[in-house]
Amino acid sequence: MKKLMIILLLLASPRLLAATADEGAIRTLLAGQAAAWSQGDLAGFMAPYWHSPKLRFASGGDVTYGWQATFDRYRAHYQDKAAMGRLSFEIREVRLMGEHALVFGHWQLDRQKDQPQGLFTLLLAKLDGRWQIVADHTSSAH
Amino acid sequence: MKKLMIILLLLASPRLLAATADEGAIRTLLAGQAAAWSQGDLAGFMAPYWHSPKLRFASGGDVTYGWQATFDRYRAHYQDKAAMGRLSFEIREVRLMGEHALVFGHWQLDRQKDQPQGLFTLLLAKLDGRWQIVADHTSSAH
Repeated sequence: MKKLMIILLLLASPRLLAATADEGAIRTLLAGQAAAWSQGDLAGFMAPYWHSPKLRFASGGDVTYGWQATFDRYRAHYQDKAAMGRLSFEIREVRLMGEHALVFGHWQLDRQKDQPQGLFTLLLAKLDGRWQIVADHTSSAH
Repeated sequence: MKKLMIILLLLASPRLLAATADEGAIRTLLAGQAAAWSQGDLAGFMAPYWHSPKLRFASGGDVTYGWQATFDRYRAHYQDKAAMGRLSFEIREVRLMGEHALVFGHWQLDRQKDQPQGLFTLLLAKLDGRWQIVADHTSSAH
């Protein structure tokens, strides 16, 4: 009976099912990103970012355009594993809007010398069938 | 001839026309917001924010939920006209996504003692036929 209810629910809500799959895919993507960072793998961390000159990365008061420039910026700021530390994300909300999604979250770096943390707002787009980060706004707690 | 071309273009692209109207409405809304702030009118500044407990306001490392709490936060931080100063927005991009829009911009406060500035990412939704800010992520340059 419970199984039947679930089947009926799923048949009735293909949209809900798709939304759940999209949110799951996005959460998996971000979990993979944090894991890559914590292993010192900056290229792995950058993988979900849109590989385009139009990628938009905003941090504090500065905006960087383009995947390569964003990668270079990270490389300059985090030169070794000690500087990178361990990254954790807390995903607070995923809002699906058709082929776009907005993610609100909290980030924290655990390093030997400090624990910087703050917030991020990500815009993702489903491009070529997979979710990619097309715009990132990151801020730090003071 | 030029006029005819324009008329044909408009007839051919009702979607484009609607998008232009939406972007115009949003830009007008934000211009009004900056003007209200610069006149020391915090209530006027708050008018385009969604009057809901679900309004999300993120700044630096802190998140405030709800219109009233956001208003109270602004009131506590900016107690008089000197603290408020003159606000200018530079709207860098308006991305329309159906009934939602994302706005990327730069803000600056001109005050007698300093000129703080930074970035914002706004999520707007068309609710009850008008655009309202439902989420705001603001950051400051260090």
